Amino acid sequence: MKKILNNPVDYVDEMLEGLIAAHPHFYRLHGDSGRVVVRAMPGHRGKVGLVTGGGSGHLPVFTGYVGAGLLDACAIGDVFASPSAEQMADAIRFADQGAGVLRLYGNYGGDIMNFDMAGELVEFEDITCTTVVLADDVASAPLAEREKRRGVAGMVYAFKIAGAAAESGRDLAAVTKVAQKAADACRSIGAALSPCTVPQVGKPTFHIAEDEMEMGMGIHGEPGVWVDKLRPADAIAGEMMDRLLADMPLAKGDRVSVMVNSLGATPPEELYILYRIVKARLEAAGATIVMPLVGRYATSMEMAGVSFTLLKLDPELEGLLKAPCECAFWRV
Amino acid sequence: MKKILNNPVDYVDEMLEGLIAAHPHFYRLHGDSGRVVVRAMPGHRGKVGLVTGGGSGHLPVFTGYVGAGLLDACAIGDVFASPSAEQMADAIRFADQGAGVLRLYGNYGGDIMNFDMAGELVEFEDITCTTVVLADDVASAPLAEREKRRGVAGMVYAFKIAGAAAESGRDLAAVTKVAQKAADACRSIGAALSPCTVPQVGKPTFHIAEDEMEMGMGIHGEPGVWVDKLRPADAIAGEMMDRLLADMPLAKGDRVSVMVNSLGATPPEELYILYRIVKARLEAAGATIVMPLVGRYATSMEMAGVSFTLLKLDPELEGLLKAPCECAFWRV
Repeated sequence: MKKILNNPVDYVDEMLEGLIAAHPHFYRLHGDSGRVVVRAMPGHRGKVGLVTGGGSGHLPVFTGYVGAGLLDACAIGDVFASPSAEQMADAIRFADQGAGVLRLYGNYGGDIMNFDMAGELVEFEDITCTTVVLADDVASAPLAEREKRRGVAGMVYAFKIAGAAAESGRDLAAVTKVAQKAADACRSIGAALSPCTVPQVGKPTFHIAEDEMEMGMGIHGEPGVWVDKLRPADAIAGEMMDRLLADMPLAKGDRVSVMVNSLGATPPEELYILYRIVKARLEAAGATIVMPLVGRYATSMEMAGVSFTLLKLDPELEGLLKAPCECAFWRV
Repeated sequence: MKKILNNPVDYVDEMLEGLIAAHPHFYRLHGDSGRVVVRAMPGHRGKVGLVTGGGSGHLPVFTGYVGAGLLDACAIGDVFASPSAEQMADAIRFADQGAGVLRLYGNYGGDIMNFDMAGELVEFEDITCTTVVLADDVASAPLAEREKRRGVAGMVYAFKIAGAAAESGRDLAAVTKVAQKAADACRSIGAALSPCTVPQVGKPTFHIAEDEMEMGMGIHGEPGVWVDKLRPADAIAGEMMDRLLADMPLAKGDRVSVMVNSLGATPPEELYILYRIVKARLEAAGATIVMPLVGRYATSMEMAGVSFTLLKLDPELEGLLKAPCECAFWRV
């Protein structure tokens, strides 16, 4: 669990400094807080704004997805900590092009509280906000209590869909509606093999034995559904697919995108071994896979493990998924 | 050092199966060995062919860089092991479009021996081959013995430059010449924080204490220049830049591309912290940075650590670097 850093208190600011230095054509800082990252080339006047926010330590989530056809602005907190309401309000102010702003973020208490406060702050400035909260992690609560589920990698799909809808000129109600449809059509599950270390804490977020894994763990180390001996790749992938398909059954003719995501340290070689089973299971269900994503899309620094996300498509979602987008980490 | 896999002997074959299943529009298998990955959309007739080969466990190197404006074919061995001469010959046969084939690979004994034998095999089939061997790791031998240096992430730049030259219609001599120029203009150095595990071996490639790092380590765990306590990010980056710039001095007005590469487990947050110093040092030398690459370009599975690579540009190299290319891992 070694990390390459300087003073842990500078971790996020130095990371953002490097991110913007490396990609000045994609990102810049906005406002005085040093924690609001916005598009270097802002969206056109009249475009619905799209903002998110959340803790650091998940690159490319959240900041990395600021870009054309994606997010307009992102407020970023310390590692695994919510940004402040004022930072979120700054992100909303930047994103507003006169057509209102959709707040699109994960279902975490701190983020909800601060985004609600940020909405109240900008209400006096005549900026209309709507909200879609991602709650895609099937391991975090049963389907009947879906509103309690955590938001994880499904966020990436929601950013993409909403970003494309906003770019195409839809109004705030329409962008919000299709973002909610994407959020509703997402299901994710993760499995962790090792913890990560929050720089300012300096010790791993949880303990797991050298021969064990945890099914259903959250991206901040939130408890999963079981801890047991490390299983073979095909068994891990099979159980993850069982859990996803039990929650959102697929039928013959369905079209679905799937993300096989490393939580950080797990290399692409292992993701591709897992993908064989993901593909076989989806095809056995009669579904057609559209634009599979295999890589690192939503991480927890150096945590080892994977997550799978399904996005069940209809023609509208598929069109928006395939629309062009560009940021430093993803291009369609 | 946990890994998600099935039977270790199936690691490479299952990885390739998943890679091709996920990206059938980029990659396919060629021949009977199951270890030759080629472009799904072959280059045009008369284009110079570009092949590489080497061990598995370095994604996106080697296989991942098969694509338009990049490699035509790649022979891939077991983890950290050379492919066979026959597999390399199959890669050369596929890549040949009547204009000859450049073999472009890293300076490792097994790869050189097998690529030489592969060249002899195809010579009887009237396929002309040339060779450029990458030897960019400044930590592996002094400048005066440059031919002894290992080839590491500089390979990615060489693939890009040679791929663009071949795509543009240059002949074999010209493609070979500019690939050699790119190889000569590359310098790399790595620093490792943790080892990785070769699946069929089942234990880490080397030992390093929990509070230590190794400067100059190779991508298979070859010994570096020192082992000592883990240093702050800015000190690590500073020393790595010192070593690169001592080997290839830069002057005011020089243009250079730089790659800040994770060896696997090291997350992008840490790469961006390091990039601040890389940028400051290059700018202090008077150089202009062109198309910086920050991410995972050449890895050793779950090894933690980083490498920096400099490519000193002239107008020809810069034009080829910026030419379009596309594979599953990189797009320009």
